[in-house]
Amino acid sequence: MVNNQQEVPDIVIGRLPVYLRALSAMEASGKQFTSSQELAQWLGISSAQIRKDLSQFGGFGKQGTGYSVAVLQEELRQILKLDREWPLIVIGAGHIGSAVANYTGFERRGFRVVAVFDNDPRKIGVKIGAFVVLDIKELNDFVKQHGVQHAMIAVPAEYAQAVANQIVATGITAILNYAPINLAVPSHVRVEYIDPALHLQKMTYYLR
Amino acid sequence: MVNNQQEVPDIVIGRLPVYLRALSAMEASGKQFTSSQELAQWLGISSAQIRKDLSQFGGFGKQGTGYSVAVLQEELRQILKLDREWPLIVIGAGHIGSAVANYTGFERRGFRVVAVFDNDPRKIGVKIGAFVVLDIKELNDFVKQHGVQHAMIAVPAEYAQAVANQIVATGITAILNYAPINLAVPSHVRVEYIDPALHLQKMTYYLR
Repeated sequence: MVNNQQEVPDIVIGRLPVYLRALSAMEASGKQFTSSQELAQWLGISSAQIRKDLSQFGGFGKQGTGYSVAVLQEELRQILKLDREWPLIVIGAGHIGSAVANYTGFERRGFRVVAVFDNDPRKIGVKIGAFVVLDIKELNDFVKQHGVQHAMIAVPAEYAQAVANQIVATGITAILNYAPINLAVPSHVRVEYIDPALHLQKMTYYLR
Repeated sequence: MVNNQQEVPDIVIGRLPVYLRALSAMEASGKQFTSSQELAQWLGISSAQIRKDLSQFGGFGKQGTGYSVAVLQEELRQILKLDREWPLIVIGAGHIGSAVANYTGFERRGFRVVAVFDNDPRKIGVKIGAFVVLDIKELNDFVKQHGVQHAMIAVPAEYAQAVANQIVATGITAILNYAPINLAVPSHVRVEYIDPALHLQKMTYYLR
């Protein structure tokens, strides 16, 4: 397996988790082997694209026999560094933050929520699911102590940039932002966005 | 304004809501005029790309004076058919469904949640936020009566395909899927996906 980070386009990296998700679903349905054609059909991506993406990391499948679902999953997990569990923190203990903190689906996929923070005295100390909401003032110490590298922002849009600044100051470089606003961060920090309204708006264009 | 649906690439349509979001934030911060350069800086997209995207729908800005924030927003809302309010239903009254139903950010952006459905007798009839959870058996009648064209799926992965089939049967053609699974739908139906773990996994690749 070759994992030459510099050379693989970002868009290809973005598809690897999609392949991994499909393979997990295949495994859950009892499938042991698959092919680029079958993956293509599941995902609505061309089989040539899938083969090309995977070939960037060396050859996984054998001509004729296809891919082992288990082996390809394992390889993708290694490439994506998901062969370990990453601690994850949530900033914002509102509806979205609570839902995310209570979501059990992260754990099978390489992540575990370890803390929820807020700055609202009415929320700090309150229990949501398994978590007692921590004071945002404890953020820096907590991140350092627990080696946290991933944070989710689930605060109202008007506070999101300030929270992002606090997160960046801790040294965290991976931020998943649920607030509907573009964040300005230093170039070594990556931000991904969850904004359901964007997707709804895009689909609406195509309605008759 | 030219809105020639056939000719505009899907990836361009996907960026229009991002421009609209940035313009709304600019308006909220008191800005009246902007430029493709300024938008580019906010969004991390090149100004040439922004000009090219917008030119697909005719010219909006004047050379030298840039774009009126209000006018460009209005034009984008028209193109995206967001110059009206679309009713939206949520299937699944768990943590995510409840958070989405209670989220107030959709309304400024063209959508209003009008009902939440579930098939669990323990959830049907229960109040979450402003909604009494409806029986999924009422889905078809409700959709017809209220002219609903958008649905969000917030059920566990193992039920998502069955729910998608029920939604498609009502005539709905725009589905936002929060379940971490690819859905098989007829080609006239569009599905967009919200899967935070995918984004976390992608960012993890880049961690040192």
